[in-house]
Amino acid sequence: MEHKKKDFNEWYNEVIEESKLVDKRYPVKGMNVWLPYGWAIARNVDNVIRNLMFSTSHEEVYFPLLIPKDQFAKEEEHIRGFGSEVFWVDKGGDTPLDIPLALRPTSETAMYPLFSLWIRTHADLPLKIFQIVNVFRYETKQTRTFLRVREIHFFEAHTCHESFEDAEKQIKEDMEIWEKFCEKMALPYILNVRPEWDKFAGAFYSIAADTIMPSGRPLQIGTMHQYKQNFAKAYNIMFTREDGTREYAYQTTFGISERIIGAIVGIHGDDRGLILPPEIAPYQIVIVPIVSDEKENVMNEAKTLFEELSRSFRVKMDDRENYTPGYKFYDWELRGVPLRIEIGPKDIKNNVITVSRRDTLKRSLISRENCSEELAKILSDIQKNLREIAWKNMQKLIKDASSLDEIKENENVNRVYWCGSAECANRIEEYTGKRILGIPLIAEKSKGKCVVCGKETDNVCYIGRSY
Amino acid sequence: MEHKKKDFNEWYNEVIEESKLVDKRYPVKGMNVWLPYGWAIARNVDNVIRNLMFSTSHEEVYFPLLIPKDQFAKEEEHIRGFGSEVFWVDKGGDTPLDIPLALRPTSETAMYPLFSLWIRTHADLPLKIFQIVNVFRYETKQTRTFLRVREIHFFEAHTCHESFEDAEKQIKEDMEIWEKFCEKMALPYILNVRPEWDKFAGAFYSIAADTIMPSGRPLQIGTMHQYKQNFAKAYNIMFTREDGTREYAYQTTFGISERIIGAIVGIHGDDRGLILPPEIAPYQIVIVPIVSDEKENVMNEAKTLFEELSRSFRVKMDDRENYTPGYKFYDWELRGVPLRIEIGPKDIKNNVITVSRRDTLKRSLISRENCSEELAKILSDIQKNLREIAWKNMQKLIKDASSLDEIKENENVNRVYWCGSAECANRIEEYTGKRILGIPLIAEKSKGKCVVCGKETDNVCYIGRSY
Repeated sequence: MEHKKKDFNEWYNEVIEESKLVDKRYPVKGMNVWLPYGWAIARNVDNVIRNLMFSTSHEEVYFPLLIPKDQFAKEEEHIRGFGSEVFWVDKGGDTPLDIPLALRPTSETAMYPLFSLWIRTHADLPLKIFQIVNVFRYETKQTRTFLRVREIHFFEAHTCHESFEDAEKQIKEDMEIWEKFCEKMALPYILNVRPEWDKFAGAFYSIAADTIMPSGRPLQIGTMHQYKQNFAKAYNIMFTREDGTREYAYQTTFGISERIIGAIVGIHGDDRGLILPPEIAPYQIVIVPIVSDEKENVMNEAKTLFEELSRSFRVKMDDRENYTPGYKFYDWELRGVPLRIEIGPKDIKNNVITVSRRDTLKRSLISRENCSEELAKILSDIQKNLREIAWKNMQKLIKDASSLDEIKENENVNRVYWCGSAECANRIEEYTGKRILGIPLIAEKSKGKCVVCGKETDNVCYIGRSY
Repeated sequence: MEHKKKDFNEWYNEVIEESKLVDKRYPVKGMNVWLPYGWAIARNVDNVIRNLMFSTSHEEVYFPLLIPKDQFAKEEEHIRGFGSEVFWVDKGGDTPLDIPLALRPTSETAMYPLFSLWIRTHADLPLKIFQIVNVFRYETKQTRTFLRVREIHFFEAHTCHESFEDAEKQIKEDMEIWEKFCEKMALPYILNVRPEWDKFAGAFYSIAADTIMPSGRPLQIGTMHQYKQNFAKAYNIMFTREDGTREYAYQTTFGISERIIGAIVGIHGDDRGLILPPEIAPYQIVIVPIVSDEKENVMNEAKTLFEELSRSFRVKMDDRENYTPGYKFYDWELRGVPLRIEIGPKDIKNNVITVSRRDTLKRSLISRENCSEELAKILSDIQKNLREIAWKNMQKLIKDASSLDEIKENENVNRVYWCGSAECANRIEEYTGKRILGIPLIAEKSKGKCVVCGKETDNVCYIGRSY
């Protein structure tokens, strides 16, 4: 495998192919086949967010894929933002359709006409729903597995509220959910308020969660949008207050795409392959029986152990006959299983199991008695360790910069002072070829000089060559 | 609600609307919005089949939605069978696509070009995969929720084997899986070998699982197809045998659509609404605290009970403030929750809980101590009871018939002797307006005279006006 540090892009493609997450040979550009291992990771990620949503009183729904053109075009900025990247269905069999149907690029325009039927009075609010679906974008840029594809595995939450303040509270709740979610992905992030010109099409403001890939390039892995009443006005989502007055609902959305899996691959992996956080690994533990002799005894012990551990963990027994233990170690390291257990005659005799951690590659003996408890501790330590390393590494990829040339010349994300004006932003983006990620939500209060105009400001912003 | 017996179709539509399974007001014909309760049922059904597939060494994958036209058209019969009901994507943004893309009506033509890359030698076989996706058919007939829609929630398994015998064994395994699956749905069925002219487009033979709705009309709820080498030849899926010779793979598929949910609604429900089998009910138990007095004490006891039961069951606590217990009983009966528990001051004093079964509507007191065990027994009895009633009712909807007029004049499924010839079949279908479902797989050996030509035969077949 390519060295991750030497050529991150090559390494990224290779690790995805060799660990069998997707097959890229499907004959439509930007549409990959999810192989069992990759799909199992995606489903585990889905279940993490699903459970977090259920625990905050969101309900899961499924809206149709196809959206009639007239309905799709109702919110002006939205259609301007998405129109050029929509796949259109024009025919059923040989029959031209009366109205072309869009493959959802996101579901505002599918959902909101129904919201206008569901919501009558304040008693119907808040409305908090989400769905996990695939969305479609006719991407003309170069595609890249998980990071830029045309069929995107997608989580989207949509809420309606009585007031702007309630909608703001929802965004706060989303941030809390997001923090818990990222803990389980072991991923670091910065929350940036996107500049005006880079908001979601139709939003009042957009907050993006950006992480930084080892290449030094930022990657948007989550978004929270405050719509205010923009869509409610276009789709006539109104409610009656207790005092009898009518008002448009206040709306928010919260989205996560399969980019999260690209981030997990890119940020945690090493030259041996994937390293999966235990919370989302398809197998948290793999058992490799060492059967040079005492085969029957070892296999029986391995089976007993497998059954015992399966009660608490996702476990794989690798009892393949025609492969050496060495090959199996290599294979499961490549596929990023957090813990490997070897069990052989000597282990059995000594009443121990041999345990190897994928993150530190350290091997140790632990007592066979009540090993579940000890293994749970190690897994939780791996989860914590991956997260800490990832946060530290992200910090290293952020450089303070005080001139445009400095920004232009490095491969990292830069932290600069920016007065906030569109003129200076334009100059930064044009001169450096990088993008302003916005103002970090957690204000970093200190003063400095705008990197373009030199005006004193306390606006800090992040800049990078985003994926 | 309409009486189920008086007008089944009306009742069916009403129960779906009132129990909030889907919203039919989405502005594309045959595409409904799955509401939280309906989607929760669908996800439980998905998980039943998913776990059965995992336990028989199938792996889950996800193939792209869009299929290039040239690839779609490779198997002649298949394109002839599906061509007229495919939705076509012709444009990305304003750009016409080089090759139109089909929305998958089923995934043979998406998967098999990849299978031809995956399969090299006998060591790669058997290949056993499945996916749970939505498929799309441009349906021109009248649509009906779950039974005939244009976006269909769908399970499809695809396998490849070394020999016809191995593929036949796979079909046997599918039937065993199917039996277990239907046990959990509490649904009865007949396995019919479809006549030649009614096979899946491209199949060597098709076995369909038909159930019978209370209207007397048969409903296909599952299919197993033997493809032999038909698709392997069109898509060049070849493997090398141990002796070095090359051969085309033998293939099968196994499919279940959202019609299964239509069958659950239609077959189990009654005039009060849905009756859900405990195995797939979103809530198996609902707790209704009776808080006329001792409110705090009752609420505390109800909460303790809720937490205790949540360890073993899917439980809903209905602590809505502005609704009477009577309304809540009505509501959860409508939505088909298998068990309702009432808990009030008197129950607490007597150390009991009041339990009502949705299937029999019987109410009883059970001891509060270790009630989990007793509730598990009752739920398992409800599951069994629903299944037995459904099987009995299906038998009642099958009538032996010995003349074409007899077949024509009743609303049921008919069991008749048929010599097996296409001529007689044609005559039956034309004269009666009903369809031959095929020869039951479990042969019913006795002799009789063909209902058309009078020739002696031991072919029994089922005939009905299918959905």
